[in-house]
Parts: sequence; structure tokens; C-alpha cells
Amino acid sequence: MEVFGGNSFPSPCNTLGFLQKNNSLEEKGRLAGQKNLLSCDNSDRDARFRRTETDFSNLFARDLLPAKNGEEPTIQFLLEVVEILTNYVKKTFDRSTKVLDFHHPHQLLEGMEGFNLELSDQPESLEQILVDCRDTLKYGVRTGHPRFFNQLSSGLDIIGLAGEWLTSTANTNMFTYEIAPVFVLMEQLTLKKMREMIGWPDGEGDGLFSPGGAISNMYSVMIARYKYFPEVKTKGMSAAPRLVLFTSEHVRDHKRVSRMFVPTSPQSHYSIKKAGAALGFGTENVVLLSTDERGRVIPSDLEAKIIDAKQKGYVPLFVNATGGSTVYGAFDPINEIADICEKYNLWLHVDGAWGGGLLMSRKHRHKLNGIERANSVTWNPHKMMGVPLQCSAILVREKGILAGCNSMCAGYLFQPDKQYDVTYDTGDKAIQCGRHVDIFKFWLMWKAKGTIGFEQHIDKCLELSQYLYNKIRNREGYQMVFDGEPQHTNVCFWYIPPSLRGMPDGDERREKLHRVAPKIKAMMMESGTTMVGYQPQGNKVNFFRMVVSNPAATQSDIDFLIDEIERLGQDL
Amino acid sequence: MEVFGGNSFPSPCNTLGFLQKNNSLEEKGRLAGQKNLLSCDNSDRDARFRRTETDFSNLFARDLLPAKNGEEPTIQFLLEVVEILTNYVKKTFDRSTKVLDFHHPHQLLEGMEGFNLELSDQPESLEQILVDCRDTLKYGVRTGHPRFFNQLSSGLDIIGLAGEWLTSTANTNMFTYEIAPVFVLMEQLTLKKMREMIGWPDGEGDGLFSPGGAISNMYSVMIARYKYFPEVKTKGMSAAPRLVLFTSEHVRDHKRVSRMFVPTSPQSHYSIKKAGAALGFGTENVVLLSTDERGRVIPSDLEAKIIDAKQKGYVPLFVNATGGSTVYGAFDPINEIADICEKYNLWLHVDGAWGGGLLMSRKHRHKLNGIERANSVTWNPHKMMGVPLQCSAILVREKGILAGCNSMCAGYLFQPDKQYDVTYDTGDKAIQCGRHVDIFKFWLMWKAKGTIGFEQHIDKCLELSQYLYNKIRNREGYQMVFDGEPQHTNVCFWYIPPSLRGMPDGDERREKLHRVAPKIKAMMMESGTTMVGYQPQGNKVNFFRMVVSNPAATQSDIDFLIDEIERLGQDL
Repeated sequence: MEVFGGNSFPSPCNTLGFLQKNNSLEEKGRLAGQKNLLSCDNSDRDARFRRTETDFSNLFARDLLPAKNGEEPTIQFLLEVVEILTNYVKKTFDRSTKVLDFHHPHQLLEGMEGFNLELSDQPESLEQILVDCRDTLKYGVRTGHPRFFNQLSSGLDIIGLAGEWLTSTANTNMFTYEIAPVFVLMEQLTLKKMREMIGWPDGEGDGLFSPGGAISNMYSVMIARYKYFPEVKTKGMSAAPRLVLFTSEHVRDHKRVSRMFVPTSPQSHYSIKKAGAALGFGTENVVLLSTDERGRVIPSDLEAKIIDAKQKGYVPLFVNATGGSTVYGAFDPINEIADICEKYNLWLHVDGAWGGGLLMSRKHRHKLNGIERANSVTWNPHKMMGVPLQCSAILVREKGILAGCNSMCAGYLFQPDKQYDVTYDTGDKAIQCGRHVDIFKFWLMWKAKGTIGFEQHIDKCLELSQYLYNKIRNREGYQMVFDGEPQHTNVCFWYIPPSLRGMPDGDERREKLHRVAPKIKAMMMESGTTMVGYQPQGNKVNFFRMVVSNPAATQSDIDFLIDEIERLGQDL
Repeated sequence: MEVFGGNSFPSPCNTLGFLQKNNSLEEKGRLAGQKNLLSCDNSDRDARFRRTETDFSNLFARDLLPAKNGEEPTIQFLLEVVEILTNYVKKTFDRSTKVLDFHHPHQLLEGMEGFNLELSDQPESLEQILVDCRDTLKYGVRTGHPRFFNQLSSGLDIIGLAGEWLTSTANTNMFTYEIAPVFVLMEQLTLKKMREMIGWPDGEGDGLFSPGGAISNMYSVMIARYKYFPEVKTKGMSAAPRLVLFTSEHVRDHKRVSRMFVPTSPQSHYSIKKAGAALGFGTENVVLLSTDERGRVIPSDLEAKIIDAKQKGYVPLFVNATGGSTVYGAFDPINEIADICEKYNLWLHVDGAWGGGLLMSRKHRHKLNGIERANSVTWNPHKMMGVPLQCSAILVREKGILAGCNSMCAGYLFQPDKQYDVTYDTGDKAIQCGRHVDIFKFWLMWKAKGTIGFEQHIDKCLELSQYLYNKIRNREGYQMVFDGEPQHTNVCFWYIPPSLRGMPDGDERREKLHRVAPKIKAMMMESGTTMVGYQPQGNKVNFFRMVVSNPAATQSDIDFLIDEIERLGQDL
């Protein structure tokens, strides 16, 4: 009995106390069941456990470590949080749980049953903090749910999650070996492994993990500029001629999913265009390349546009080939683009943020053939490979150029006065300040799954998309946005409600069809059953874009999605 | 007894099993003690618990959720990880634990007793994964240790930690309200609160959390350019005249801490200069402002340099005033700088990444007087306020300009086809792609501490620096780098070993003194007792820069640091 005494280490058995007091009606059944298992099956202990309950309402942040005698409440509080989190994890994978419990902004802002977002001068008790944690999850979206198909990033990998928990506990940054020795080395080894998979000789080159694909792509443009016009670093863009960047009209661009239909505005080239604006090129100097019906860049169009730019006196600098576009999942023909880049001496970047993961699959990596000829590659393990957000790598074939481009103190690499080899200090390569540790979760997942684990994950997701494609391509009420099997897990389709099936093509039908996907999506969100993205593309009205990157999804979830679309859309 | 049966929910009581098997000799004593408290004091249960031990070596990532019957091993694995993490948390605050266990890169790369960083094709067992987690922490640096003074970011806030654990469990991104409803609203409310503290009327304006102070500062330069020369967004820098940015020669620049001494290279202006290089201004167009002996910009020098730039035909655009410089902790005189910016119609940015937290303190906020006149402010709660990394805000006085600058689809704000108010979608304001959720831990800490909790934290850290300053300013063997009380928690000083105390000033003494701090630092790291940064500044040879941002530090830790410097340095 004494182990549960007041001064002893708090028993994890009492971590349910808080939940019992605060759970919602809907959860009481579940918790009651768990309690029998978790509690130590002893009424005396339950008495203790009730006493602990009281504690949270009288405990405050100031009572936790580093406070004197703070160890006990600290551990107890963290275990309570973990109880909330592990319950959330279990429910995430439970198909009887909703994907989301939708509320409008004004509803959440007005406050939901004791969930008040406002900040105040005075502290709240830890009991309230635990309520806030539960409510934050309650009103959020379960991105790991097997029926969440809304984004390229989905799933909740348990190893990756553990890795993130450890990363936040270590609470350091990647700037120097001095304060992140293990993480710096993990990053170095993992980047080398990724470069080997790209096919660069001996995995040589350089790289960094950055805060997302857009920043990785921005790095690639900066490096390309530095390679050809290094004086821009010191003198600015006025030291260079008018430089031109080329990218697909169909690039990876998940931001545009679920937007309104503006047929006159281009529907893609988001991150390269943003980089063009930010870095001083100007968006007008980002030239969009025509694509075939599957969304793949047409190499002859690239060559024609290069020649055109040169004839105007501009200087072509950089070509982005997309390895997995956001909407269609298209892979540009890298080898043909690389031939042209070599011919005209241009920097070739492959944006494999979405598709890079396919390099892990012996079956699918051929879709990226030619990637080894790229000068730089973006590859986001947080998308297709299921690594928790954020995890994006910029990989560069030429060693030293990242530091050359971004370093503000060239001498430092060679004149250290630290006691260790300061070439391991990565800070001066980055444009960022305190760089977040994004590597550990990925490294840990790779250890835990092995390369073959990632391969199985990827092959499985692609098979599931194939299943969806086969199921709907000839099904009544469906129309594919483009013909042929998907290259990636993207399956793009219109659902045609019965009321539109007999209607001849024309403006009226297009306008009506344009409103179908948003309406179905809104109903999905309000019923909380599933989520899938939609968007228009060029002159095509709103269509659904299914993607699969969550290994929790099964054929039954695909079947469910189809049933749900038909259930919600049949009367539109 | 049945509660510990094979099919029941795994008892947290058995989470020590793994550690018992794998702990190092040094830890056995501690763990043995804990076991008595944590285990359920019953040998039958211990038997079960041993059986569980075996499980981890036969369990793999593929056995966890979403695997069939994966719930039990998932919870068990996560609890095991939490056991490792909570042990780490406890030790972090334990002064008998080392700050770090230093190893050179080649040592860690060669592998330490079963800690192998290499990745392979085949998966490792969960037992090995747990070993890897423990070793990762073992060979890392305890940035929350009360004697870790090496960076502006230190400490391990328990509420913030819980917030990060929840954030990674939610695993979403900030792009749209659709997938991050609660976090998006928390960000909005928190940014408003921060703008109120800056003093902008009704807290109006705009802002975002970004991946660190350098990116926040980069945003400020981009927005300033967009305000005065919006056509640069589409046409590039060639559409603007030669633009000039102004910043202190002494700005916030924690990257340079602990670097070699290159007296000829400027020792500051890191992030604004990086922004100048990246955004196409060129580093030559970043003009450095002279500072007084305390590191504060001299306003008349700013005005003279503005006039000089104009006379050369350049166009002054942007002035960065530093609110808390990295090395000296200096606060530039914002009001005087604002007068000049108004006179010449320049954008005023305040880089309060390090000093912004002082706005929370009624006693110290006067150091930022005039900040309400800034057009934009960088403020990193992950520095002075102890929020876990990363948490940096860019705050902007003019509403809508962030979106104007970065949006690639102006129509979208006004023509939504979503069912909710899409002005809550923040994605198009950012240059990033999947923006990490940095808000929750900060929001939760604010809830838990209240504004007064942050105020107490800040006042305490500043008092502690005052204590250090008073202790060493007249102590034998110490020399202050600048006179007067520190404005922030930065205390800069040389330790003069007995062998140098009688030596006349001159090159020989300077050279010798320059080597003292690196040597002491190297010995500190190798003995693992404490960590403090050093760096040269301008023509001043290497000196120690103490900073306090960890509320766990006490006067005894300051005393310890002084003793340790004297112990390690006395024979140099």
C-alpha cells in the first residue's frame, strides 16, 4: 500500500483520475471499461487516487520542476498528458471515431463548454490545462485517421511520434555539433543515404533538412543563382542579367487544393513562383511549361521557351522538374529535361517533395529515372513516407555550395578554435536561425522499419490507389479527370450526381458540377466521416483529388469513401 | 491479478522492464530505488513484467498500430518511451547529472557500445529502438540543465514540453483552418495579444509564427520591399532602384558565439545580411551602423549613413533596430531611430527575438520604449520566455500586407467555395509550405503561467544576471567587456588567469587571452560540468558571454560557474 503514499513516486495507476472527472458523456463508457484494467483493482488505492484528483485543481505550472519538490507533480502531470495522448492515438485508428468534430471559427472563438481560447494575466490550474489539452484534440482533425485523405501528409506513425516526443524533450537546435552532436551526425548520415538513393556517386554532395518543401525549393533557386552568378550574394540582383526560371504549369502545389475556381488564374507553380517573388527574380520571370493531358511537362515546350527567353535577351537559369505533382501525381520526364538542361547549361532541380519517397520502392523508382542527373532535389519524408510533420530535405550534388551560398563568414570553416572538428557545425549553411531538429523521427523510423519497411508502405499505398482507380473508372456517376492509371497515389475524378448525368456538356452543367465537390466536402466535414481534397485545375471545374499516404487505410476505407460520396451527393 | 493478464491493457507498472535490462551501471542504483516505488510491490506482477521484457525484442514497428492487435504493443511501447523521457526530465534538473557526456564526431560515428547510427535495409526490433532512444539522449546535451548557459534558448519548461508532445500527436499543419482549426485560432489570438503588448492600437495588425528569428527578419525585409516597391514581386529587383538596408554592427546574432577570432571580419549583422543576400539586395547594400561602447546603435550615425546613401543615389528602405543584441544584450534607442525613420520615410523593424520577452515585465519593458512605432517586430518566445524550440513570431502593424506580399492568388480571400470563413486560412500569407504548429506549446504555457508567470520568469533571470555582474565586476581575475549594468541577461567578461594578470597589455597578452576562453570551454565540455558561450567581438579577443534564460538556474549555479572557470583556468 505504501507505494501509493503521499510522498512516494506517483503511481501511473492513478493517471485516470483526471479523465474520470472530466470526460464527456460519450467517453464515459470507454473509460469505465479501461478503469477496470488500469486501476490497481483495489478500493484503498482508488481512495488514494481520488485524493490525487484534487491535486490537479490545486496545482499550477509553478509547482512543477524546477520547483522544489516539483518532481512528483511533474511526472504525474506528464503521465496524465500521456494518458490523454495515448487515448487519442487509440481513437485515431478506430473507425468508429469521427475524423473531425467540425465547428465554425466563430463557434470555437465564442468558447465551447469550458474551452476558452483567451489568454489572461493569471495562471490556470493544471486541471484546466489538462482540460485544454483534451479539448484541443477534441476539436481538431485526426490526420492519422484511416479515412483522412485530405492532404499529402497523413497518418500517425507510432515510431515517428515517439521520435518527436524525444526531440521535444531534448529541446535543442541543429546549429552546432556542440549542442546537437547526435542529431547532427544523424542528419549527415541520413542525407548521405538519401543521396545514394538518388544515385549520386558514393552519395557525395550536401544537404539540409528545412522547414518544408517550399523552403527546400527556395534553397535550390538560391544555390543555382549562386552557382552561375555568385556576385549576386554581395551585389544583389542588379549584378545579374534578367534571369528566368522554368517550372511546370502543374507542379506540386498542395496549397491550392480546396480553393475556389478562378479559371483565368493559373492553378499551379506555387513554391517556385513564391521563391521567384521572394528572391528578387519576380514572378513574371517564372515561366510556366505546358504539360500533356497527364500533367507532365512537354520537353519540347521547355526547349522552345528557353530559346524564346534567350532571343529576348534573358538568361535561362533554372529548371524545376516535378517528381510527383500535387494534383495529378505526375512525374515529369526527367531524362529528357536533363538533356535540355545540359545542352543549355541550366541548373536542374527535381521537386520530389511528394514523389521522392518512390525512390524507396524497387517497383516504382523508375518513375524518377534521371533524377541522378539533377543538381538538386527536394524530398519530403513527411509526405509519402509518413514521417510526422515537418521533415523536408534539400539535397545538393555539389559539395560546399550550400555553405558558399549562405555562409556569412567564409573563414570559419578553416580556422576553428573549438576542440572538435567544426566542419560538423551546419549553421552557416542554412538561411535559418535556430534550426529545428527534424531528423530524429525520420532516422528512428528508418531504423525501425528498414528501407524495406518504407518500400512496403509505398507499394501498399500505390496498390490502394490502383484499387480505387479500378473501382471507379467505369462506375456509373464517375468521370476520370485524365485517362490512364495513376502514376502516383493521386486519383482525380468527378462525381456526377444523378441530376447531372443526363445533362449535355455546356456552361450550365459545368457550373453545376463545379459546385458538387465543395458541397459534398462540406457535408463530409460536418458529418465528420471522412475528408478528401478537391480543386479545379486549369479549365477543369472542381474535382476530387484522392491521395493515399497513410498505411492505416485499407480497401474497406476506399469503399467507404465511395459510398459516402454517393450517399452525400445523390440528391445534389 | 487479472488486470496484468496477457490480454489486458498493459500496466504502466511494467514499463521499467526494458530499462532494467538495458540500463548502464551508473543508472542501476537509481533505477533500483525507483523500482520499489513504481512496481506494484508484488512478485507475481513482477513475473508478468519480466515476460513483457521479452516482448520488445520480438516486436517490430510493423506490430504497432495500425497493425491488427496493435493497440496493446503500441501503448506499451509509448509508455516505455515516456519512461525514458521522464527519467531524462528528472535528471535534467538534477545537478548531480552532467550537462553533457562529450564525444568527438569520429567517436560517435564509430559507434558507442551498441549505438550504431547507420541505417539499414532491415528493421530493428523495438528493443533496439528503445536502446537508440536512450543513447540519443545519453550522448546529447541537456539544454534544460540549470548549468547550461550556452545559448539564448535554454531550459525545459514542463508545460511547453507537454504542449509539444500534444502537437506532435496531432501532427497537422497550419496551412488551413480546415485541418488545424484550433491551432489557427490560437495563433490568431496569441498574435493579437503580442501586438497589444507591443502597443499597436487594439492589437490590430498581422503576423505569423515562422521557423526562427532569421526567417522572421527575412519576412520583415520582404514586407518592407513590398510596401515601397510592390512591383518587385512580379518584375524582380530590377524594377526597384538600388535599395539599402541598415542594421547594427552589433545585432542579435547568436550564431557567432563560439567561433574563431577573425578580427578583420565583421562580427555581427547575421540575419539581416543573410536576408540581404537571399532576397537579392546583396550584402554590400546592408549598411552597418556604429554603436556605442555598450553596443547600442548611435542614431546620428544612422542619419549620416542614410544621407550618404541618398547622395550616392541609393534608396534607403529599411532600418533594423535590435531589441536585445546577442552578445552584449544591447537595446538600440528605438524612439530616436523611429524619429529618423519617420523623417526619411523608412520601414522600421525591431528585432526583438532575444529581448521581446521583456515586454512581459513591467519592470523591464521600458527598454523597448518606442517599439509601438515599429512597422514590424520579430519576437522569439523560444528564447527569453523559455518556450521549447521553435517558436518565433513576425508581427506586422499593417493588416493585409503579409498576404499582399506573399499570396499567389489574390482572389482567393474573397471568393471562397468552402463552407467556412476562409479568411482563417493562413497559408497564402507564408512563404512556407506545410507550416509547423509552433503555437500550441506557447499558448498552453501562457494559459498555465499567465502573463504574470512570464513576468516573474523574466524578472528572475535578470536578477540572476545582476547577481553575476555584481559578483565578478570587482573580483580579481575578471575584466568586464563593457562598463555598467547589463541591460539584458547578457554578462560579458574575460577571465584572466594568474599567469596573465601581471602582463602588460599588448599583442602577446591579447593572443594569450584570446586562447583562454576556448580552452576553458573545451575543458568544461569534456568534464561536462557546465557550458557557457564565448566569442570575440570587433577587436576584442574571445570573452565569455553569460546569458540566463532558464528559470531553473539559481545563485548557486552562478557561483558554481565562477568556481568552475577559476578551477579550469587557474593554470592556463
